[in-house]
Amino acid sequence: MDGYSQQLSVKMFLISTGKMVCVLNEKNAKEFGLLVGDRVELSFKKKKCVAVVDITKESVPENHIGLYREVTDVLGVNGKDQINVKATGNIKSVDFIKKKMRGEKLSEAEIKEIVKDISEERLSEIESVAFVSAVFMRGLDLDETIFMTKALIADGKRLSFSKGPIVDKHSVGGCNGRATMIIVPIVAAAGLYMPKTSSRSITSAAGTADSMEILAPVNLDMAKIKAITKKVGAVICWGGTVDLAPADDKIIKIEHPLSLDPEGQVIASVLAKKASVGSRYVAIDLPVGPYVKIKDKETAMRMAKKFVQVGKEVGIEVEAVITDGEDPSGPAFGAALEAKYALEVLEGKHFDSLAQKSCELAGVLFEMVGVTKAGEGYDKAVEILQSGQALDKMKEIIRAQGGKIFSSEQIPISNLCQDIFSTEDGIIQELNTRELTRIARLAGSPANKYAGLMLNKSRGDKVKKGDLLFTIYSEQKQKLESAQEYATENNPFKFKKMILGTVKFPSVKDTTCKV
Amino acid sequence: MDGYSQQLSVKMFLISTGKMVCVLNEKNAKEFGLLVGDRVELSFKKKKCVAVVDITKESVPENHIGLYREVTDVLGVNGKDQINVKATGNIKSVDFIKKKMRGEKLSEAEIKEIVKDISEERLSEIESVAFVSAVFMRGLDLDETIFMTKALIADGKRLSFSKGPIVDKHSVGGCNGRATMIIVPIVAAAGLYMPKTSSRSITSAAGTADSMEILAPVNLDMAKIKAITKKVGAVICWGGTVDLAPADDKIIKIEHPLSLDPEGQVIASVLAKKASVGSRYVAIDLPVGPYVKIKDKETAMRMAKKFVQVGKEVGIEVEAVITDGEDPSGPAFGAALEAKYALEVLEGKHFDSLAQKSCELAGVLFEMVGVTKAGEGYDKAVEILQSGQALDKMKEIIRAQGGKIFSSEQIPISNLCQDIFSTEDGIIQELNTRELTRIARLAGSPANKYAGLMLNKSRGDKVKKGDLLFTIYSEQKQKLESAQEYATENNPFKFKKMILGTVKFPSVKDTTCKV
Repeated sequence: MDGYSQQLSVKMFLISTGKMVCVLNEKNAKEFGLLVGDRVELSFKKKKCVAVVDITKESVPENHIGLYREVTDVLGVNGKDQINVKATGNIKSVDFIKKKMRGEKLSEAEIKEIVKDISEERLSEIESVAFVSAVFMRGLDLDETIFMTKALIADGKRLSFSKGPIVDKHSVGGCNGRATMIIVPIVAAAGLYMPKTSSRSITSAAGTADSMEILAPVNLDMAKIKAITKKVGAVICWGGTVDLAPADDKIIKIEHPLSLDPEGQVIASVLAKKASVGSRYVAIDLPVGPYVKIKDKETAMRMAKKFVQVGKEVGIEVEAVITDGEDPSGPAFGAALEAKYALEVLEGKHFDSLAQKSCELAGVLFEMVGVTKAGEGYDKAVEILQSGQALDKMKEIIRAQGGKIFSSEQIPISNLCQDIFSTEDGIIQELNTRELTRIARLAGSPANKYAGLMLNKSRGDKVKKGDLLFTIYSEQKQKLESAQEYATENNPFKFKKMILGTVKFPSVKDTTCKV
Repeated sequence: MDGYSQQLSVKMFLISTGKMVCVLNEKNAKEFGLLVGDRVELSFKKKKCVAVVDITKESVPENHIGLYREVTDVLGVNGKDQINVKATGNIKSVDFIKKKMRGEKLSEAEIKEIVKDISEERLSEIESVAFVSAVFMRGLDLDETIFMTKALIADGKRLSFSKGPIVDKHSVGGCNGRATMIIVPIVAAAGLYMPKTSSRSITSAAGTADSMEILAPVNLDMAKIKAITKKVGAVICWGGTVDLAPADDKIIKIEHPLSLDPEGQVIASVLAKKASVGSRYVAIDLPVGPYVKIKDKETAMRMAKKFVQVGKEVGIEVEAVITDGEDPSGPAFGAALEAKYALEVLEGKHFDSLAQKSCELAGVLFEMVGVTKAGEGYDKAVEILQSGQALDKMKEIIRAQGGKIFSSEQIPISNLCQDIFSTEDGIIQELNTRELTRIARLAGSPANKYAGLMLNKSRGDKVKKGDLLFTIYSEQKQKLESAQEYATENNPFKFKKMILGTVKFPSVKDTTCKV
């Protein structure tokens, strides 16, 4: 019951759970009037924390309290100590979560309180999941998205630069490619600053951080990010090392198992991270296609507008561009293969749709900041890329981050590989990026950095039976076999068919081919 | 990654978590491509189970897997064993949960699958909470409520009687009182069968199971419930001992911390438990009042109709009655005090609104089953109560359950008590049942069975300053003091005021007194 307190002996569990949890014996829980998921205040000497109650019959004896590492670390107790345990009522955020669940709008103060409690582990898992579910089901309107962005910014650390202008880009739900590794050196070569924090792969074959790590260390702290950006104009590092938005990281962990990605939360999450590194100009890339996150232009347009509006409220000039996401972004899938291919683009070995998209996006940033006049950004980017200035800048970035790979030829490819050939003649109508990603992951991506696949054909190509379609690379025989087996059963290459539907007595068969 | 498997050495954690969870080292998790909340299939010899993944840097060494008691019990492994760990994709229920989150209607098969996976611990906490949140936010329509009821019935154990007719009653969100302890013996005395499973207190001062336990053991297994009901016509036991609806119990545990009670889920939960004990006729009591769960008659009427319709589909004849829930149901709050008062009613010492409500509800059952003609059920119930037949039947029930308390005088009251006196003259306009419950809980209810309070005044009474309003009973000095302090600051007795609002320059003050 609220306010009732008691001294209990600590029983330590030498396990980290990632949560502020304590375990009470059934009898003590009853004495307190506590149920699983209720909250208690624990105090020891001058240290205090709030923990969520779990209840056991046997793991913790009567008049003891089981504590995991997170709690013992905060309180500084060990197995011989006694701590004070006090029942507390619900915290305010729980009422705000209920409010959102009922479909009401949250105020700025309410969203701030929820974000703070998520960040500081005061909410139980049940409460946090309920909040994320509510945001998914009820949505965040424009105001709430702005409040959420501001709350996430206030929650984490913040980088501040004296130099400028600081620019950034972000691609929403793209797939393979690593345009970032081409855009960043182009932009920095023109004298702009771009401290780029990127993610590791969650559901793709590789994240930008995974690919960059092939060339140089990406676990940089705040001081390093600042120093390197000051010196060479840019970094490409992993955003997970720096505590830019701890609440956001926790929300993303909840979203993952249910693959939730509520629009407002995505926008807040992206812009908060940009604001935290001090970005003033941000290009948002919204690829639209059948196998990427955004399936239609209307959704992309709605998100684009929201990005711009929210950006304005948090002091970021955003230009959101909707891009063609129908095809894979370059032929490579997998950390090393994508890094190798991006370097090859910088080395002038290819100028394909990936190179073109990178130059278009760099051009957007040039025009936003005023490096070029309107309409001339793309040309400037192409010039920087083709003159080798972008490659030189990339080498500077790699060196500054402590890397040792400066040329695509230094990146080995795995000997453990399997070619996949066409079993029919025809014209390639579509490549299923989702299946390609799945094959790369079965082959070992993203854990095995040299695993993945390289496409040998693209949309529109005429193919004969026996032609090489793509090659799977792996580091483990078991994984290569399972990738090959899957690829054979689920061919990611769709061939053009002329008959789109057949009518036969008595059934109507409708093959839905896209023309 | 899906399908990828590996042998890992078991590291046992001798703790029960109530969940099927396993802990992987960060490096193995990466190798598998697994994130927190993903699912793996564990197998050892011929035993298999599915567990949700947690990830650690240090608590579990590389190539080991940390297992809590739930999993080691199922697999029959110990710390020297190696088990096979295989990454599995999402289970089907997760798609159904997403479907409900998007606001779509679920089919019977889909709801059945979700309930089965909740019951068998195959859903992670994140997924289960998302489902309960979705049911709260999207609601269950009539069909879905019927499907949910059927799924909950199919999930648990079921009692079957050769004798009949079996009747039951349930009160939705009532408060104190224990009408059940009066209705059951009246109904059984008339020759009907009533195997009543009741709950312990969650948020009230006592549940029926808590009060009955003052008189007799309430932890009865299925065989005992059946045998006693056959012999004396009724039991009053705790529903938690028997596995009537394990999925429902798990859903309720999630609902509690957020105090969620989605209407459809409440109806399904109640009727599934009734069906599980073989009830054919059920009276549902829906109290309406400012301090009980249902605040207005419209909500009560809507729920009443749903109860009747869902009952019909699962073979239960339901009569739902909307009752006056404005006042406390009798003067007692707390397990022993409520048991004592209920026995006094059976002994003919009081005939108040609690006794009247009990007779009205017993009368409803009499008329449903045909014990009396329409319009004569109440009189029959009063006759059985006043003739002492109900008291005799209660003594039989207590004896059959192994109890030793047969008279209200055998129940002691605590010496540790505190009278609360009126600080003003006036007419009592309202008693705040929520505050009274809170005071009883601060005094130690429900953990301390002899704690609670007894009212000395009721609505409409004229009171003088210094008159005794109520007495708080406790078993611990600390708790008595905190209850007294709270009672003084938050008087649960509201006095009638004639001035309802005041207008003064420059502010408008509006005291909202209820007339």
